[in-house]
Amino acid sequence: MKALVYHGPGQRSWEEVPDPQILHDSDVIVGVDAVTICGTDLHILKGDVPETPSGTVLGHEAVGTVAEVGSAVHSFQPGDHVLVSCISGCGTCRLCREGHYGQCIAGGGWVLGHTIDGVQAEYARVPFGDLSLHSLPQSVSDEAAVLLADILPTSYEVGVLNGGVRPGDVVVIVGAGPIGLAAVMTAKLYSPGCIVVVDPAEPRRDAAKSLGADIVLDSQPEPALELVQSVTGGLGADVVMEAVGIPETFEMCTALVRPGGRVANIGVHGAPATLHLETLWTRNVTITTGLVDTSSTPRLLRLLADHHIDPTPMITHRFGLEQFMEAYDVFARPEAGALKVVLER
Amino acid sequence: MKALVYHGPGQRSWEEVPDPQILHDSDVIVGVDAVTICGTDLHILKGDVPETPSGTVLGHEAVGTVAEVGSAVHSFQPGDHVLVSCISGCGTCRLCREGHYGQCIAGGGWVLGHTIDGVQAEYARVPFGDLSLHSLPQSVSDEAAVLLADILPTSYEVGVLNGGVRPGDVVVIVGAGPIGLAAVMTAKLYSPGCIVVVDPAEPRRDAAKSLGADIVLDSQPEPALELVQSVTGGLGADVVMEAVGIPETFEMCTALVRPGGRVANIGVHGAPATLHLETLWTRNVTITTGLVDTSSTPRLLRLLADHHIDPTPMITHRFGLEQFMEAYDVFARPEAGALKVVLER
Amino acid sequence: MKALVYHGPGQRSWEEVPDPQILHDSDVIVGVDAVTICGTDLHILKGDVPETPSGTVLGHEAVGTVAEVGSAVHSFQPGDHVLVSCISGCGTCRLCREGHYGQCIAGGGWVLGHTIDGVQAEYARVPFGDLSLHSLPQSVSDEAAVLLADILPTSYEVGVLNGGVRPGDVVVIVGAGPIGLAAVMTAKLYSPGCIVVVDPAEPRRDAAKSLGADIVLDSQPEPALELVQSVTGGLGADVVMEAVGIPETFEMCTALVRPGGRVANIGVHGAPATLHLETLWTRNVTITTGLVDTSSTPRLLRLLADHHIDPTPMITHRFGLEQFMEAYDVFARPEAGALKVVLER
Amino acid sequence: MKALVYHGPGQRSWEEVPDPQILHDSDVIVGVDAVTICGTDLHILKGDVPETPSGTVLGHEAVGTVAEVGSAVHSFQPGDHVLVSCISGCGTCRLCREGHYGQCIAGGGWVLGHTIDGVQAEYARVPFGDLSLHSLPQSVSDEAAVLLADILPTSYEVGVLNGGVRPGDVVVIVGAGPIGLAAVMTAKLYSPGCIVVVDPAEPRRDAAKSLGADIVLDSQPEPALELVQSVTGGLGADVVMEAVGIPETFEMCTALVRPGGRVANIGVHGAPATLHLETLWTRNVTITTGLVDTSSTPRLLRLLADHHIDPTPMITHRFGLEQFMEAYDVFARPEAGALKVVLER
Repeated sequence: MKALVYHGPGQRSWEEVPDPQILHDSDVIVGVDAVTICGTDLHILKGDVPETPSGTVLGHEAVGTVAEVGSAVHSFQPGDHVLVSCISGCGTCRLCREGHYGQCIAGGGWVLGHTIDGVQAEYARVPFGDLSLHSLPQSVSDEAAVLLADILPTSYEVGVLNGGVRPGDVVVIVGAGPIGLAAVMTAKLYSPGCIVVVDPAEPRRDAAKSLGADIVLDSQPEPALELVQSVTGGLGADVVMEAVGIPETFEMCTALVRPGGRVANIGVHGAPATLHLETLWTRNVTITTGLVDTSSTPRLLRLLADHHIDPTPMITHRFGLEQFMEAYDVFARPEAGALKVVLER
Repeated sequence: MKALVYHGPGQRSWEEVPDPQILHDSDVIVGVDAVTICGTDLHILKGDVPETPSGTVLGHEAVGTVAEVGSAVHSFQPGDHVLVSCISGCGTCRLCREGHYGQCIAGGGWVLGHTIDGVQAEYARVPFGDLSLHSLPQSVSDEAAVLLADILPTSYEVGVLNGGVRPGDVVVIVGAGPIGLAAVMTAKLYSPGCIVVVDPAEPRRDAAKSLGADIVLDSQPEPALELVQSVTGGLGADVVMEAVGIPETFEMCTALVRPGGRVANIGVHGAPATLHLETLWTRNVTITTGLVDTSSTPRLLRLLADHHIDPTPMITHRFGLEQFMEAYDVFARPEAGALKVVLER
Repeated sequence: MKALVYHGPGQRSWEEVPDPQILHDSDVIVGVDAVTICGTDLHILKGDVPETPSGTVLGHEAVGTVAEVGSAVHSFQPGDHVLVSCISGCGTCRLCREGHYGQCIAGGGWVLGHTIDGVQAEYARVPFGDLSLHSLPQSVSDEAAVLLADILPTSYEVGVLNGGVRPGDVVVIVGAGPIGLAAVMTAKLYSPGCIVVVDPAEPRRDAAKSLGADIVLDSQPEPALELVQSVTGGLGADVVMEAVGIPETFEMCTALVRPGGRVANIGVHGAPATLHLETLWTRNVTITTGLVDTSSTPRLLRLLADHHIDPTPMITHRFGLEQFMEAYDVFARPEAGALKVVLER
Repeated sequence: MKALVYHGPGQRSWEEVPDPQILHDSDVIVGVDAVTICGTDLHILKGDVPETPSGTVLGHEAVGTVAEVGSAVHSFQPGDHVLVSCISGCGTCRLCREGHYGQCIAGGGWVLGHTIDGVQAEYARVPFGDLSLHSLPQSVSDEAAVLLADILPTSYEVGVLNGGVRPGDVVVIVGAGPIGLAAVMTAKLYSPGCIVVVDPAEPRRDAAKSLGADIVLDSQPEPALELVQSVTGGLGADVVMEAVGIPETFEMCTALVRPGGRVANIGVHGAPATLHLETLWTRNVTITTGLVDTSSTPRLLRLLADHHIDPTPMITHRFGLEQFMEAYDVFARPEAGALKVVLER
């Protein structure tokens, strides 16, 4: 089959590789129907993720059709149309029992396209299929569903749920890339009073507005602080989400939150940040981090099927699987307006 | 009357000052029966707390007898024996309605001995008396009760409740000063499986042991990490509390916590710490800060009256009110073994 | 002044009574600008509420202008435009400290128009003014705000929050009177997947549809059970709210809920119901009851000011204060289509 | 092998039956080392549980040694010493993903000794072995561990956690059979201020006292109400647990709870109870029911291994496996003082 293979920093190719095989009896082989590219794939390509060996098939977000199931799989059979979650959970280790599938200590977690071959291919082996695949209703399109493999549960769990968004809250989202935009969309499920989005790129601010942000502004710390103070009567924001992944934006988030409020980090960080405990120690602030668990995926799928969310406006480019090299080129240049690119068989 | 007055950095005296008067009709004048000294008082004396003006009577932890009540006070009358909480809450602002009395935005919060005259005196004016005083049952001694003015609710709310201690948890408490020891005591209310206490001073480690710590060790980061890994099968601690207030110990805490665990900061910090988001971003960690709200004080008073907690072993020295200068000298030298000093009329 | 006075079962009149006076220094005298009638007022008039003495001015839902404040009131002054909450809370008793103002054990709770004179009058005395009144922004109309005195916080706290509604949930609301309709409106703040409303009256079902119910049906138990089973794949509803107040509808609610689900009782009951523990004991069901605490009123006011909720479609009739007798006649005949009636000065 | 077989109402025998076989590849065959009898087994024998067919091997609480594992089992191998949980969970259905293993809708839940052959036998087939078995540390005795198969997690999850016991609470437990006693023991993990136990049998009241109840009394409703009022200053109990299973005791529980309090039903009910909504509707009461999920079993095992709980005082009689008929005779006569009987190979 064909697959997108990582060949060390800066090197990728769409090439012929052997078909995946059932290795464990809880595995499922899925024929890929739709797949997307994540910012994390670019991190791997930059060489920032040393645990990913050269030769790995990338990708952890797909929709597909079950081709073959291991003998222990009891929820799926060949022909089933499924969402492949970015997280594989064994379901029985201590952390999986807590619902922390992303932290699985028995062979799961984020493995697809990271420590084992992923889904940017014609076929993929999915470990722990019973827990990691989700049946798709006919009413849901592949391109909508594929955004529930990672980006929507990530923004919802790590941003909205960790942030504890409640009706009427003032919510600030710093960063309007795909994850920040998905945070706008999923925060709105809780009817916040005001969503403020901070991003230096005007097209992304426009996208945030069209997805429901009430106020958008450029990412200078002082104006952001002034605006949030003014919107909240000087108190600060109830919830602040970091969706960039650099020290400056994280520190801005901790400056914007109100006493008793929450800062939910969603960004992927490569460097430490400064935590201003000399002011924060008295302020009853809660800061959370997290890799997605995808425990919310069934709920998000119901919301999608019931038309309460529609992530497709985030798709800016569509390709065929054979255009994978070109799709990466487009996705790697966000300044040209790319948010999510979807490739379909 | 006599009071302990702050006269600028390094300067204090036990001197004659005017008696306090009712200024607002929710005020209560309390005759002080027992009072203690807090590490924060030493911070003020060092000049670290610029908002405390020279001339302020220090102190925010007392037990006393009501001498006079303002016209709006309906829960107390002269002669009532009361605990003076370190926090005064208006009870009606947005943050007080959330139970965040420590964050009161209408004149309350931590004001006693901070922005107004405090309780290290023969008499004190307590604002918002109905909410800030607590009736004491006869069965409770003054010296036990006075430790519920600040130190026990602080360790319980900011450490144990923010940390979400649950039965069977592995709990690490970094720092075995009075607050860390009170955290040991109040954590035990939730039957953790193992309490590990880290402190460089052997007498404090001994005190921690006698209050119920299961394991104590010196505060080198590597052995602490090894021990916690060994106790938890390599997972990390469920809950880690910072009770020192310096960057190094805070960073140690974030290294000791397990995926899905919580770090509760109780320490008073004067400098920023480094937050290692480059590793923490994936680990589903929750970090909390907080000033005490004293919302738990009624519950702790019931536990004290029912003999479920006994904080008096933390009292190492007892004085009369007139020995206030000496008491400060003793308290300022923890290396001599002082934990809490109590002064009684 | 003029007021609507209860003179024993079946007897009411709009008549001249003495103006209210400040009795306690936390009292506020409010000049009534807008007021409404509650189903509970009809219960009192039927004689079902023996603790309400003959001679009481009825009413507990009003918007007005502060005329006079007691000496202990620090948040309001004459001329302020305010919402009068149906609940008065002392703010300092044990239950108020938990936020359970409706359960106040120090003279508050539901007292207005119940155990003391209420707000269906030109002027009213409001106890514990600082906690029981809420400033109104100019952007909010009196007739919208008056629905936040009781009906919206009741449906939100006792129905939606007690029921734990989450995005994507299947929510059943049994009863589409004003409280049931307000439950539809406030449940939507959490983006449930499907709201099913059950009511025997077609006009009320129509009102439910127009406020956002997805499915409405008549109140026969069997079809309701069949429909809920079909919508939920045989599992049962995530949340069921009882908004009628009779045994039959309560029992229907406990039959409709899924394992692990919640039944939130909002209805006012005059008779016991049968609890089918012989089936429910294994089903991990949570049942809640509650009088409103109005702890959510500030949040609902922010949502109203931000245009996230609009309760005015529930207002079917408008009167002047002097038409109070006629307004009661209209409100007492729901079969003619009355939901909420608002009287303005 | 030998097993205890149900042969219709009133009929049981310890007899030769075929050895169990692996039927599904997630099954595990366990050689039984220790086993106990549950009150539910007596219900089945009375004919109260029609879904249990004649011919079923009874029993759902055991400790044993793994004899054989299905091909999909990855956490256990022959020779492992394990606890057999009373609940089998598939781990992947919607309810298992919520941690509601007891409500599993894919073939799990309470099946052992109920709808399939159980563990009162020399060998047993345990479905979904990875999730339903728990490794036992050497330091734990079989007779202590076997009480964690059902009775301790049931009292802890359905009583203590559903009841939300917190330090300092007044907790009433109605019924001091094995489940009520286990509720006393597990409630103490949260340091309640006062545990009141109500039971008509003096030996059970004595057992409750020795396990840590503060006050015990006979089960007349009026004295219980008076006592609870007196202990709580007229407010009512924070948490009330029903551990009997008859309408009268359930109704007593709802009369004893305070406004804002919780009633946790643990009892097995065969008949409906009366729910006094005419008084409860205003009281902010939460009532929960539940079958155990055994999601707490790993935590309870850690507490047992760390010596924080010791359930063995509840074991009043010990037998060999071959004495199963006699053990049932003893267990069926609680008036003779039997609490838990343990049978070991």
